[in-house]
Amino acid sequence: MDAPSRHLQAMRAAAPLVQNITNHVAMNVMANVMLAAGASPAMVHARGEAAEFAGLAAALSINIGTLDAEWTDCMALAAEAAGAQGKPWVLDPVAVGATALRREAGARLLALGPTAIRGNASEILALSGAQAQGRGADAADAVAAAEAGARELAARTGAVVAVTGPVDFVTDGARAVRIANGDPIMPRVTALGCALTGVVAAFAAVAPAFEATAAALAYYGAAGEAAARTAQGPGSFQVAFLDALHAMTGEDLDATARIAPA
Amino acid sequence: MDAPSRHLQAMRAAAPLVQNITNHVAMNVMANVMLAAGASPAMVHARGEAAEFAGLAAALSINIGTLDAEWTDCMALAAEAAGAQGKPWVLDPVAVGATALRREAGARLLALGPTAIRGNASEILALSGAQAQGRGADAADAVAAAEAGARELAARTGAVVAVTGPVDFVTDGARAVRIANGDPIMPRVTALGCALTGVVAAFAAVAPAFEATAAALAYYGAAGEAAARTAQGPGSFQVAFLDALHAMTGEDLDATARIAPA
Amino acid sequence: MDAPSRHLQAMRAAAPLVQNITNHVAMNVMANVMLAAGASPAMVHARGEAAEFAGLAAALSINIGTLDAEWTDCMALAAEAAGAQGKPWVLDPVAVGATALRREAGARLLALGPTAIRGNASEILALSGAQAQGRGADAADAVAAAEAGARELAARTGAVVAVTGPVDFVTDGARAVRIANGDPIMPRVTALGCALTGVVAAFAAVAPAFEATAAALAYYGAAGEAAARTAQGPGSFQVAFLDALHAMTGEDLDATARIAPA
Repeated sequence: MDAPSRHLQAMRAAAPLVQNITNHVAMNVMANVMLAAGASPAMVHARGEAAEFAGLAAALSINIGTLDAEWTDCMALAAEAAGAQGKPWVLDPVAVGATALRREAGARLLALGPTAIRGNASEILALSGAQAQGRGADAADAVAAAEAGARELAARTGAVVAVTGPVDFVTDGARAVRIANGDPIMPRVTALGCALTGVVAAFAAVAPAFEATAAALAYYGAAGEAAARTAQGPGSFQVAFLDALHAMTGEDLDATARIAPA
Repeated sequence: MDAPSRHLQAMRAAAPLVQNITNHVAMNVMANVMLAAGASPAMVHARGEAAEFAGLAAALSINIGTLDAEWTDCMALAAEAAGAQGKPWVLDPVAVGATALRREAGARLLALGPTAIRGNASEILALSGAQAQGRGADAADAVAAAEAGARELAARTGAVVAVTGPVDFVTDGARAVRIANGDPIMPRVTALGCALTGVVAAFAAVAPAFEATAAALAYYGAAGEAAARTAQGPGSFQVAFLDALHAMTGEDLDATARIAPA
Repeated sequence: MDAPSRHLQAMRAAAPLVQNITNHVAMNVMANVMLAAGASPAMVHARGEAAEFAGLAAALSINIGTLDAEWTDCMALAAEAAGAQGKPWVLDPVAVGATALRREAGARLLALGPTAIRGNASEILALSGAQAQGRGADAADAVAAAEAGARELAARTGAVVAVTGPVDFVTDGARAVRIANGDPIMPRVTALGCALTGVVAAFAAVAPAFEATAAALAYYGAAGEAAARTAQGPGSFQVAFLDALHAMTGEDLDATARIAPA
């Protein structure tokens, strides 16, 4: 596997335009995270332009956090357009097991063939058809409990599947890695998981999905570790995290990344 | 009345899942405030899941800040579901007197029997049927001018009514307290009132509404005082406030809370 | 031209109620920026109240960043109401050249006669009918390349046109100024351009549009310079920027503003 810095530098050099159809809680922090990382985010979700814009963008991320029927249609239109043009798109199945609306939206989007899927353990378990305990956006299951489901989901759909948590797990069905970066305060700041999905999409615009996802997760976690060294709580963490995403050099990343075969 | 720390600790121990149907300005800060306090917020408002999710959550908050006809329906569906299951729900009647749409939505939701109502003086006056001067989200009336209206509204509806401002007033129609915590910079940061309503809902998930509301307001104001000691303006206040909500111990809270019978 | 402090002080003294119909990414930061500056923002966009509220507000801003067909109708209703009552309204044509939906919305709103228009070079070029290269919210054209288009657009529509970038350009078709305040990190924080449009609307509530726009841009850029002196990256910049908007005195502004005839 290449050093993750290679993919970070390629992403920053390209500054890929990434279309994001995401939830109302995450939009602002996701845009700021992606700008700090070096990408060019655009939040474009309307029926009248979602598919058209997918043709302009280099990658797409879709997040079902604050879903309704109209938005699900727009997500599907954008995903179809991205897929038809061979552009990578990443699915974030927020709380997919919680309600019938989410289960249906998750199944519909999954059938459109995402390039990658990023969720917490409960979400990946629910999407893989296993029993999950998640409620809302928080995971109630351990990452390790979702590894088999993630491998099965990847093998069945062809998507790279990332389960994020204290130690992340990424698999394409054949290969798998664990990434041990990050800080325990991160789940105390809303939408950092959602924003990570946008960063995965930005990396996937410039590298193969498995390598892109692993590098994006290591970068994100490494920035979290840097931020935690000065933060006093979740407010100052969020500020320091944006600064760290922006300041991190390729050398910092390679020295901090803890990616190991699984 | 119990020490407010008792309710803070119970809320943190339960980490209640709280469904919030709130406005677009407040969603992110409300989620961060509730996470920093120790609750588990979920922003779920779609017609296809609002009522179903109310069955999963421990409490519900409803805020009419960025209202439209579709959202009002969803709010009503969720409030009915919460009420039918005996779960507490809290109404935040943002700018309820400003337009016909808001007056109608306020009346419709009020008729569904909220457990508690939190607003500024102008909003509580408007909801109680009195003449109010508020424009937008800012209060143009003093808290003291709304106390009689708040008592009447509480007695008539059975809801605990909280009027927030420089000194807050909380009543269940029979009992009443004033809470003298907080800092004058707080109205210069958007959505802090909205986010407070979510914290009230989180406390109401674990304690009777009158005690829960008073404790939540004291906790919020005490965190505001702590944040103001280091903040340089509204930007750094917002950051320090999240840190303070997270860091505050029960001992800090009991030492700082200024709750007095009214 | 008056010193810009005169307009800042008039705006703060009036604390104008400004209605904003803006995008989901910008709502929170726009409200915080306007509160820090001293205005009273209200995000009111629903069909059932957008026009009614325009009658209560002192000015209106309209931003097409996260557009759909329903919102475009509401924007038009509010703009018509503001125009009919002689109240200033400011158009922010985000990414107007990117999709057919945006081109149509831009043309429809332009025909309603905005008092002022604020965009980046690509957006102003697209709105003026020239060829633009913008993708998403980022400008791909230099401000200088849009000056002729801005003059033409202003002369044709009667709007004051502001092209913002490293050096801003403001014209009413006859007069023109350049404003050389700001910091290069500002485009790395999302929605700061959108929020500026709200500040322009607040200034336009108390002063003629050309002077108001120039003063608002100088104030904004000066606050950016102050914030950049302490910021470590885009996260801490955003915090320091809100503090600087709040702390800036009229004397600071006049000493820092670099407004020159063009």
